[in-house]
Amino acid sequence: MARKSEMPQVLPPQLPNLLAEDAVRAALIEDLGRAGDITSNATIPPDATATALLATREEGFLSGLPLARMAFALMDTSVRFEARAGDGDAIEAGSAVASISGNARAILAAERVALNYLMRMSGIATHTARFQSRISHTHARICCTRKTVPGHRAFDKYAVKCGGGSNHRFGLDDAILIKDNHIAVCGGVKLAIDRARAYAGHLVAIEVEVDNLDQFREALTASPDAVLLDNMGPEKLAEAVAINTDDNGGKVKLEASGNVDLDTVKAIAESGVDYISSSKITMAAPTLDLGLDIVVD
Amino acid sequence: MARKSEMPQVLPPQLPNLLAEDAVRAALIEDLGRAGDITSNATIPPDATATALLATREEGFLSGLPLARMAFALMDTSVRFEARAGDGDAIEAGSAVASISGNARAILAAERVALNYLMRMSGIATHTARFQSRISHTHARICCTRKTVPGHRAFDKYAVKCGGGSNHRFGLDDAILIKDNHIAVCGGVKLAIDRARAYAGHLVAIEVEVDNLDQFREALTASPDAVLLDNMGPEKLAEAVAINTDDNGGKVKLEASGNVDLDTVKAIAESGVDYISSSKITMAAPTLDLGLDIVVD
Amino acid sequence: MARKSEMPQVLPPQLPNLLAEDAVRAALIEDLGRAGDITSNATIPPDATATALLATREEGFLSGLPLARMAFALMDTSVRFEARAGDGDAIEAGSAVASISGNARAILAAERVALNYLMRMSGIATHTARFQSRISHTHARICCTRKTVPGHRAFDKYAVKCGGGSNHRFGLDDAILIKDNHIAVCGGVKLAIDRARAYAGHLVAIEVEVDNLDQFREALTASPDAVLLDNMGPEKLAEAVAINTDDNGGKVKLEASGNVDLDTVKAIAESGVDYISSSKITMAAPTLDLGLDIVVD
Amino acid sequence: MARKSEMPQVLPPQLPNLLAEDAVRAALIEDLGRAGDITSNATIPPDATATALLATREEGFLSGLPLARMAFALMDTSVRFEARAGDGDAIEAGSAVASISGNARAILAAERVALNYLMRMSGIATHTARFQSRISHTHARICCTRKTVPGHRAFDKYAVKCGGGSNHRFGLDDAILIKDNHIAVCGGVKLAIDRARAYAGHLVAIEVEVDNLDQFREALTASPDAVLLDNMGPEKLAEAVAINTDDNGGKVKLEASGNVDLDTVKAIAESGVDYISSSKITMAAPTLDLGLDIVVD
Amino acid sequence: MARKSEMPQVLPPQLPNLLAEDAVRAALIEDLGRAGDITSNATIPPDATATALLATREEGFLSGLPLARMAFALMDTSVRFEARAGDGDAIEAGSAVASISGNARAILAAERVALNYLMRMSGIATHTARFQSRISHTHARICCTRKTVPGHRAFDKYAVKCGGGSNHRFGLDDAILIKDNHIAVCGGVKLAIDRARAYAGHLVAIEVEVDNLDQFREALTASPDAVLLDNMGPEKLAEAVAINTDDNGGKVKLEASGNVDLDTVKAIAESGVDYISSSKITMAAPTLDLGLDIVVD
Amino acid sequence: MARKSEMPQVLPPQLPNLLAEDAVRAALIEDLGRAGDITSNATIPPDATATALLATREEGFLSGLPLARMAFALMDTSVRFEARAGDGDAIEAGSAVASISGNARAILAAERVALNYLMRMSGIATHTARFQSRISHTHARICCTRKTVPGHRAFDKYAVKCGGGSNHRFGLDDAILIKDNHIAVCGGVKLAIDRARAYAGHLVAIEVEVDNLDQFREALTASPDAVLLDNMGPEKLAEAVAINTDDNGGKVKLEASGNVDLDTVKAIAESGVDYISSSKITMAAPTLDLGLDIVVD
Repeated sequence: MARKSEMPQVLPPQLPNLLAEDAVRAALIEDLGRAGDITSNATIPPDATATALLATREEGFLSGLPLARMAFALMDTSVRFEARAGDGDAIEAGSAVASISGNARAILAAERVALNYLMRMSGIATHTARFQSRISHTHARICCTRKTVPGHRAFDKYAVKCGGGSNHRFGLDDAILIKDNHIAVCGGVKLAIDRARAYAGHLVAIEVEVDNLDQFREALTASPDAVLLDNMGPEKLAEAVAINTDDNGGKVKLEASGNVDLDTVKAIAESGVDYISSSKITMAAPTLDLGLDIVVD
Repeated sequence: MARKSEMPQVLPPQLPNLLAEDAVRAALIEDLGRAGDITSNATIPPDATATALLATREEGFLSGLPLARMAFALMDTSVRFEARAGDGDAIEAGSAVASISGNARAILAAERVALNYLMRMSGIATHTARFQSRISHTHARICCTRKTVPGHRAFDKYAVKCGGGSNHRFGLDDAILIKDNHIAVCGGVKLAIDRARAYAGHLVAIEVEVDNLDQFREALTASPDAVLLDNMGPEKLAEAVAINTDDNGGKVKLEASGNVDLDTVKAIAESGVDYISSSKITMAAPTLDLGLDIVVD
Repeated sequence: MARKSEMPQVLPPQLPNLLAEDAVRAALIEDLGRAGDITSNATIPPDATATALLATREEGFLSGLPLARMAFALMDTSVRFEARAGDGDAIEAGSAVASISGNARAILAAERVALNYLMRMSGIATHTARFQSRISHTHARICCTRKTVPGHRAFDKYAVKCGGGSNHRFGLDDAILIKDNHIAVCGGVKLAIDRARAYAGHLVAIEVEVDNLDQFREALTASPDAVLLDNMGPEKLAEAVAINTDDNGGKVKLEASGNVDLDTVKAIAESGVDYISSSKITMAAPTLDLGLDIVVD
Repeated sequence: MARKSEMPQVLPPQLPNLLAEDAVRAALIEDLGRAGDITSNATIPPDATATALLATREEGFLSGLPLARMAFALMDTSVRFEARAGDGDAIEAGSAVASISGNARAILAAERVALNYLMRMSGIATHTARFQSRISHTHARICCTRKTVPGHRAFDKYAVKCGGGSNHRFGLDDAILIKDNHIAVCGGVKLAIDRARAYAGHLVAIEVEVDNLDQFREALTASPDAVLLDNMGPEKLAEAVAINTDDNGGKVKLEASGNVDLDTVKAIAESGVDYISSSKITMAAPTLDLGLDIVVD
Repeated sequence: MARKSEMPQVLPPQLPNLLAEDAVRAALIEDLGRAGDITSNATIPPDATATALLATREEGFLSGLPLARMAFALMDTSVRFEARAGDGDAIEAGSAVASISGNARAILAAERVALNYLMRMSGIATHTARFQSRISHTHARICCTRKTVPGHRAFDKYAVKCGGGSNHRFGLDDAILIKDNHIAVCGGVKLAIDRARAYAGHLVAIEVEVDNLDQFREALTASPDAVLLDNMGPEKLAEAVAINTDDNGGKVKLEASGNVDLDTVKAIAESGVDYISSSKITMAAPTLDLGLDIVVD
Repeated sequence: MARKSEMPQVLPPQLPNLLAEDAVRAALIEDLGRAGDITSNATIPPDATATALLATREEGFLSGLPLARMAFALMDTSVRFEARAGDGDAIEAGSAVASISGNARAILAAERVALNYLMRMSGIATHTARFQSRISHTHARICCTRKTVPGHRAFDKYAVKCGGGSNHRFGLDDAILIKDNHIAVCGGVKLAIDRARAYAGHLVAIEVEVDNLDQFREALTASPDAVLLDNMGPEKLAEAVAINTDDNGGKVKLEASGNVDLDTVKAIAESGVDYISSSKITMAAPTLDLGLDIVVD
């Protein structure tokens, strides 16, 4: 896996500092329960110190380091956390991503929470990068969906960006995506788009899902911002791309979904679509193996 | 996959009714954002009704149905949710696990949250069952770890039980697990166990992790409740089982961990250990594919 | 003020049922303090009942009735609340919008919270309608900004819709609005828009603020979704509209802001812009006078 | 508007430090949503710094500066916030009330929340001062009511003090105010006051609302701490003042309410009452215009 | 202990319904932890039902029944809770205060929380009644202080009322109580009272603590609402009562504190003071023994 | 009371730093209400400073000092808190346990909350020590139950450890305790234990309650981890101890409960049981008298 160029622009500084604090605090409390880390309290003196390394066991892309930092800081603000890599970095197997020193009980109490975030988020970033690397010769981008673990949407979508993917909408409220059920009730693709435009504010983008070329042509007449071409196969997708270019100057963004995996994604991207969305990158990403090793005590 | 006998005893009724409500509510708010489901509000009349089926796309074991029920109820208490299967049931591909009828906007607004819980938790149950089915000819049980998604520990561990697995401790506070770092600081296996016993209340179980037979023999002299045999391979594990039987009447529970996967688990179980723990069942379980289909409107 | 046709489509049913409950509960607790309604507890028997009317003292547009209903329900689920009007309705001075009957202490304890929501939100709806009525002969729509009372953004923006206005973005995260500070740092209008497009997902709309026609022409070359024309006066606005039509087929949505009040809004709208945004409708709207009258006891 | 002498005594230090933090944090999260400030993240480098001035656009009285300071600190603790004025100060149009320097993204992300608090609270302070300045030749004080925006009562009432006003009760629980409905159920003014005294602890003040002089005389016989004279006009008010002085040595505090505006308040105050309460100062106060200007980058 | 007449007026219906719900819910979650009631789940079938009686083991005064009812309802809304007594009632040893029937697991899971509230609050009510019964031949009332268990102030003070006691202020914010430290900084009793009056709203009562008659006389010149006579003994108290009557027509309420116990309270009350405050009734009240007995299954 | 040797091992550092912060914050907000400490705000200049001593009025064992420290820090991070003793220390009457200096308003605002924690928790520690000192010639330990004040379980149980006691389970979820009701439904002591073992994970300890020797013998056949001997009296207890030693090698831990007080505890302990549990140490512990004295200003 090639080293990826730096991507500092994907780092929303607001995320770790403000939004993430409540989540990490709740995760620590979930693990500490009512009585705290009774193993360390029983066996480790209160003033013992330690130095530890957060290290990868396998190569991949890093995501979640600010959450790991916060886990240690919430246990003990005097713990020093020195990052040796950044979110979005490609990392080799066996490399240290951070060193941590301070009170031994605090480090051990935060270890599991820090790793649980890092392993899951780096797993998503790495899996996203796998998809993206198969299509990097095209202009297509892999993007996520709303299939995320409840309560982790912002983290899951941030991890997708760390892996070089693109973000779909964050919730039901920040963009309109008209699906078959909505169309069925409304009575037609065009009518649904028109109602959406009348309802929504001027900064709300409108996308419509279609599953054949007739629906696609009808959709184009209502000028949506994007069309989701569901389960149509590379050939039909290429036809849709051609129609969009010919009839429409290529104005509408085209997104493909359905039957997307590491084997199929290349052909789908080569059809010329702009985005390929898949729940695989958030819901079927294997965790990246990372561990914490005490190096000095 | 054979149909599993009913396991009503795994259902903690407290979980869905009281503890889960805040989580599901937060998940819905995460998806609804500040403006709600603007697509449905734009395209579906406020009084439209619908009937939908929650159905599996592949076979597996069900987990999370009470959370799905709660998602719809929190959107609209008048939505009817009729379960056709229960958590812990083996389900065929294509079978309906529940039918839902009521206000169409409410059903569509809760759909994604309900499915996100069901898909992840049923995925864990199903993956656990895969491991357990490989070792059902032994007395060993597959069990989980503290490697769970932050904020989801109770749900992840509940899903493990739905798949026929057993639960390890729920947090740092409800049992003592002495690992290599604790031993290193304490100065010895036996000393660490003795300190743990002096510290803990009489209903706190004590387990110690060892990675060779010498440590194991030293551990037995301090009479822990359980010993975790880490990365020792089937042969060494069998030796440890024999030592426990011979020296100790088999009093101490033996748990194996390390290098556990669907290929290795059978040999590990046949060594005679009591428990095999693996993060794979919670952190590497593929989601089970389920969907919501509108059947009548 | 003419009676406005019904606007049921503006009602997001998710808002009152799920998102609003925590807000109304917190408002009641804010008013009840630690000791509850000590005046009623001292002077009114616990089982006394009453019937009351929620009535307007002046004409306007109604907004917030579901929050008022929730305030009474949270005090006592057996209180009956019968709506005689709906959010978005034009209401005459002196008309009853709801009748409430049940436990007298519960009704009096919820009265102030219910009215505080109704008075503020109906005030916003009514003020929005005043602006909108001045420009109804044009295709322009009045719309809100992010200048809202902290914690009330969803309610303030909902009230704007009840008054016939349109909604701008709900927060910093659901659309991109590039202002002068961003342009200054980036080094140019076009560059900023290009960076925004590279950063944002495909369903994120991009708007850029300009304050003269040169900037406007530069912005158009980067094809934003919308342009905010700040403080430019009706004549310059008309020129911008003409440029957009001539150069661009009118594709880009045009929004005017700055120096918008009830006297200036007509001329601004007649320039041909699509949207006119003003903080006046949320931050300078006089409350609508409503009261609760006990009619039977 | 004359410069008001400093009023440091109105500043409850508990308010900003402890009670206000949750509110400001929630306001920031409301604005940042799930994805943070995507405009700044897209267009401004993560390490860019800036200096900005918080400045008034019009004269008035300042309120809310500690909340503004907290908004910037919650985004980034290293942002420097130097106050050039204090809450309760009279400020000229165009004067800077604080300078802020630090990370540019952090400053821009907190800007709107800081201003939304400052504009609303300074608006209340300024409007309160307008009323108070009309009656400063009398001993009467303008005071607020429980008509405040839900969730903002402590802030609204604090702003009233910053403008030189006085505070009425903070909720239903900290004082007894017997109104017509309570009297109707109880069967009489005196009986209601007697019941209130029997019920309440010895540090709970008791006020009763009357709307004519007969009720007033009856009320005095029960020795309430205060009487609210509702909608009685300056002449009747003066009569009530005389009765209180003659019969009662002026022991009971007299409060006037109803039909209070900038035109009527002088005559009401000259009647000799002690307090004049009006929802206008909290619910009809125009916001004070303030802005944030980047001065150096 | 004589049966006390019914005291329905002490029941703030707001308390149980709205304010108490969060507290009881948190108490249940505290007891259920992450895994729920594992004993009942292991040994009792999910559909088993039971009937139980909440019964006293000793005589006393009841307080907290609505919280107990809420505990069972929060576990399972279908559990029936039939009260056989009410808060404030005198109850004999061995009498049932409520019968509960429904799902056996739900009843057992809520049992401890229900009892923990009832035992503590009834203990406070009973201990308060013991004090009050010693002084019932005088006009003095026993009252509480701010010495309460953190997070339980509203419940502790409610329990005091159930026992026939009176409530002091609920917090630092709802009344002014000037103590020696305040006086020392201010420079004098009268000055402190004057400043308090200038600062506080007109419905805030002002009390001042004095510990000798000179201070008391100085305090009276500033006309506080109440004076707290600390540690002065029955004779000095009687002198203070006389001074208040002679100089002041008895206008100021007199409260005694210090060295108050069941042996001393009678003499203190006979001095003629109006209130006697003691932390003993909230912080040193033995719990009242109550239990839950399964009577049918 | 003899000075107790240091017991630093009882201090879970996680408790004060992370878990306790929300509790102390809520306690301060409970006391400050909506308007803060109006007495100090009225009478003490905002920049006045003070030094105070937290001192005991009677001898006992200290518990809760980290919570007291946190109360002052949450009001004002610049307040200096110097501990002169530690939790678990035996303290003489009249000794200072901490000195506090800084802003006078902040110190006075936090005083009551700090003392309320310290007085209650030190009371529990002291009462526990009284019981423990009566049985220190035996190997028995006094231990707590789940009879704790709702919301304070972690603090109550921590205080028990500070007094030299041992902790029973923290909730319904971290150990199994089978009581008479469970046995009645299950149909037998042995069956209930077997079901518990089948249900629970391998680190969950199982205890069963019996009230006679026949039940005890049946229980032993199922090898529970512990048996609770309820209300059996010293002689029967000694018989149970003998049976456990003879039949079982003393493997099962024995706990006695029922009729435990300072008079009976010695004889119970001398029966040879391992643990004696009593709600008295948490629910009937008199508070330890501590106060805050301003020494310099």
